[in-house]
Amino acid sequence: MIRVLLVHDVRILRCALATLVGKEPDIEIDGASWKDAVRSARTRSADVCVVDADVMGRSPLDELASRTRSGGREREPARLLVLVSQDCPGALRRALDAGARGFVCKDALPEQLVTGIRRVAAGERFVDNALANTLLRASEVPLSRRELTVLSAAAEGAPVTEIARRLGLSTGTVRNYMSAITRKTGARNRVDAIRISQGAGWL
Amino acid sequence: MIRVLLVHDVRILRCALATLVGKEPDIEIDGASWKDAVRSARTRSADVCVVDADVMGRSPLDELASRTRSGGREREPARLLVLVSQDCPGALRRALDAGARGFVCKDALPEQLVTGIRRVAAGERFVDNALANTLLRASEVPLSRRELTVLSAAAEGAPVTEIARRLGLSTGTVRNYMSAITRKTGARNRVDAIRISQGAGWL
Repeated sequence: MIRVLLVHDVRILRCALATLVGKEPDIEIDGASWKDAVRSARTRSADVCVVDADVMGRSPLDELASRTRSGGREREPARLLVLVSQDCPGALRRALDAGARGFVCKDALPEQLVTGIRRVAAGERFVDNALANTLLRASEVPLSRRELTVLSAAAEGAPVTEIARRLGLSTGTVRNYMSAITRKTGARNRVDAIRISQGAGWL
Repeated sequence: MIRVLLVHDVRILRCALATLVGKEPDIEIDGASWKDAVRSARTRSADVCVVDADVMGRSPLDELASRTRSGGREREPARLLVLVSQDCPGALRRALDAGARGFVCKDALPEQLVTGIRRVAAGERFVDNALANTLLRASEVPLSRRELTVLSAAAEGAPVTEIARRLGLSTGTVRNYMSAITRKTGARNRVDAIRISQGAGWL
């Protein structure tokens, strides 16, 4: 049996997908919200963890993918398989960086997910063909790590003075970062830069 | 047979939910993305249209709910049943204004949706108990129609000068609107006001 944990915040959709996939004779699937994901992945010792990767902001992907100690010995974490949109290269990038082994397009049919689960459980990698182009775009992050930190704070509504204080920078430096971000994303202004970056999943 | 059209943009989730609900002996269900929703609702002459209401920006809810002429005679539109989050009063409000007859919480189990579909198909209204509080909050829109128009344009990244030109206002008036919006939403600045309003589904 392949033990699967499905992480998605919308319960009615999560239950529907889990019920459908759980009909496969070799798959035992359980669901969790993002909030409970890390705990559930550990207590249920899942083989594969299927996650909705298009959540805005930082999701605990890294934590999900990290080794855990349980009962005195180190345990392998569940292998990550992510559901991503074609137009969200940033989410795909974060999943890659967290060590995801499988990538299924949200526009696929549920059967594709079943195939992905079996391949990842068998230790293989699995990339949905529909995501080839997204994968290419995911390799070119347009913003530096520092710029992403500044933009994330701005997207939370923090004013320039607060961002400067939080990151130990001068307000002039923060303004320079914001100008560079606006230019690099091809945005018209700060709000536009946030909108574009969130849409692509960089934030 | 109750003919249902399920509108949701994420195909893998839409298919899973449709497969599950379609197992009921009295329900025949088909899916569509938002882009194809209006056309599909008309050509398939659905009795009930189940829609994911938490989409940002204006969705064609009104169009879905309006009467159509087909074959020379006026036809009743499908009755609307919406899936909404508890923390998204703005989406619930838009659905109410569009004449939705049923409201199912996204945190419900799929069985709740089946109950809702049968009730709405029978001409009744249906409100998920979990949405009582959201319904109360939905009755108090914090922003006026004009303020929402200004904020929507700002959220698209339009600068003040462009918003003023588009709406035939002076830039000073637009700035006044933005200040009022920031105050009313309890935000720290413009970016924060957009974030708060999008989160609650007002935008």
